Amino acid sequence: MRINGQNFHTIWIDNNHRDTLKVIDQQKLPYEFCIKTLRTFDDAFAAIRDMTVRGAPLIGVTAAFGIYLGLLNFRNEKPLDSYLNELCNRMKTARPTAVNLAFAVDVMYNQLKEETDIEKMVSMAVTKASELKQFEIDNCNAIGEYGLKLIEGMAAKKPGQTIHILTHCNAGWLACIDWGTALAPVYKAHQKGIPVHVWVDETRPRNQGSKLSAFELLQEGVPHTVIPDNTGGHLMQHGMVDMVLVGSDRTTRTGDVCNKIGTYLKALAAFDNGIPFYVALPSSSIDLTITDGLTEIPIEERDGDEVRFMEGKGGKAQVVPNGSPVANYGFDVTPARLITGLITEKGICGANEEEIKTALF
Amino acid sequence: MRINGQNFHTIWIDNNHRDTLKVIDQQKLPYEFCIKTLRTFDDAFAAIRDMTVRGAPLIGVTAAFGIYLGLLNFRNEKPLDSYLNELCNRMKTARPTAVNLAFAVDVMYNQLKEETDIEKMVSMAVTKASELKQFEIDNCNAIGEYGLKLIEGMAAKKPGQTIHILTHCNAGWLACIDWGTALAPVYKAHQKGIPVHVWVDETRPRNQGSKLSAFELLQEGVPHTVIPDNTGGHLMQHGMVDMVLVGSDRTTRTGDVCNKIGTYLKALAAFDNGIPFYVALPSSSIDLTITDGLTEIPIEERDGDEVRFMEGKGGKAQVVPNGSPVANYGFDVTPARLITGLITEKGICGANEEEIKTALF
Repeated sequence: MRINGQNFHTIWIDNNHRDTLKVIDQQKLPYEFCIKTLRTFDDAFAAIRDMTVRGAPLIGVTAAFGIYLGLLNFRNEKPLDSYLNELCNRMKTARPTAVNLAFAVDVMYNQLKEETDIEKMVSMAVTKASELKQFEIDNCNAIGEYGLKLIEGMAAKKPGQTIHILTHCNAGWLACIDWGTALAPVYKAHQKGIPVHVWVDETRPRNQGSKLSAFELLQEGVPHTVIPDNTGGHLMQHGMVDMVLVGSDRTTRTGDVCNKIGTYLKALAAFDNGIPFYVALPSSSIDLTITDGLTEIPIEERDGDEVRFMEGKGGKAQVVPNGSPVANYGFDVTPARLITGLITEKGICGANEEEIKTALF
Repeated sequence: MRINGQNFHTIWIDNNHRDTLKVIDQQKLPYEFCIKTLRTFDDAFAAIRDMTVRGAPLIGVTAAFGIYLGLLNFRNEKPLDSYLNELCNRMKTARPTAVNLAFAVDVMYNQLKEETDIEKMVSMAVTKASELKQFEIDNCNAIGEYGLKLIEGMAAKKPGQTIHILTHCNAGWLACIDWGTALAPVYKAHQKGIPVHVWVDETRPRNQGSKLSAFELLQEGVPHTVIPDNTGGHLMQHGMVDMVLVGSDRTTRTGDVCNKIGTYLKALAAFDNGIPFYVALPSSSIDLTITDGLTEIPIEERDGDEVRFMEGKGGKAQVVPNGSPVANYGFDVTPARLITGLITEKGICGANEEEIKTALF
């Protein structure tokens, strides 16, 4: 997608220097647009750990290319198989809770482990990492096409009128490689000339909505408005939202969706006002081992300083008095009964065990 | 209630200088505790306009004392009746949308308008303003006592366990003179030794929760935790909230409640999880002319910079990219069907026309 009118992925190999990886520095967005060069395994490791790159698909792809960079620097100090093993084990610790990270590292390891020639292994590594990258792009593209059909259906019912879509957090291309998940259908609709407008929840406490989703939409020229997380219910009561579209970090086989804290409140409001609530996700993020999202998915508690301080352009403000405790839960679970449908790369299905099984597996 | 261990009202006449009014400067809270001296009508007018004082009951009482200060400075330049009339008309413009402001000014005007002697008028003015102040304190105290019974009822069902109460925005004593509305029952329960803990919604975009409610609770020694507005649904799903308790800016005769934006989302979550949702309010804020809150109450749109910038201790941070539009709706309407009961100075009743009529009028 575009930044300053130019097309970008969130990560790419430099065409002139095949041993260097480039990533968009997401810590500095939206106020500064910087491209960071990663030359070593340690550079890639640090980029994941420090959240220069974030978003499950992007973390996985960065880890895969990081292993490639590590192999480029193999110097025969130890046997190749134990060197590869060490790279893979270390990479998994960059952000220990990221499921995609471990998944991507395992894919790389299984592909490379039998190879004994370093030249060949390097070549296989860059090929496999590039395949993983393309796989993520293809998934998002397919999610975008399926979601587009929903928006087209709505547009057909109110010709000439704008379709208003509310989103929470950032499930856009910056969390992926290109297109995004929840925002992919929006970009596709906008490119087809369907008038769309996005209500962007600022998404406290980390403000991924106002910082990243707003930036993406702005750069792509999609009309949007940033709102406090408190606002969505009022908009839905007054007919100002046609559809809610969010991403998912983890979905149960019964269709419960674990996503950024606050998603559940928007699902309740959508349900109360008869507004369709869709979740866009790659089918790989459906966890078939989990039946009840509410009781079985542990919710991460994050550092209280994310609530206590607000960082932005021009400074950092303390917004909670000294001495007042804070709590910072990262995610919540939206029960399947509130979800109109799941949009995946394999198609759209209802949020229930039977439809998920039939449509996706 | 207490600040730094000392008892305060939000407004009082200086005992040693009966011609000076003192108020807590609420613009500087929670990071600085300042008492501001108001000596003239213009001082009081500015304190209301600049939000040195805020909260409907406090604005009304400040206006009443402001008229008293104005009368103290009567210098015979014009007839007393037209002087009084001018004071009253000007005061209403300090914050034109505040219903309580106009109400308090009208009470003062009707009390004073027949008087022709300035000495007597001054004396009547300070008496009436003090009565208005005491009336607000008595209301809050009674709301606190009725609400306390609810909390006692809950505590009896789980002896020794903490009662967790979620609140949104600031409906505490800083918005009133003493006790507050939604927080009055909490203070009463705490003083009686019932273990209570308050989940404080930070209440974006103006953060009245994290700035004012947290400050009040901290000063009174009530256990509390500040949370992003996105969090309440998750807490309710996991049995971590026993009751939601909020204030109201305006309530319809049918029991719809207009309160700070985001209240509706918490009411939906409480309803979905079978948690009692109570609204504390003086019966004077029930607007008997309004039947349908959703269609009949206009919702104020405020300056977008409140969303775009975040002020706090140590700075001001821009949290929305340049070029992204923002929307800032001040209130939303919670339909009566989601409300367990209204706690007023006259007792507790259901949020419906019949019970409101019978119990309160």
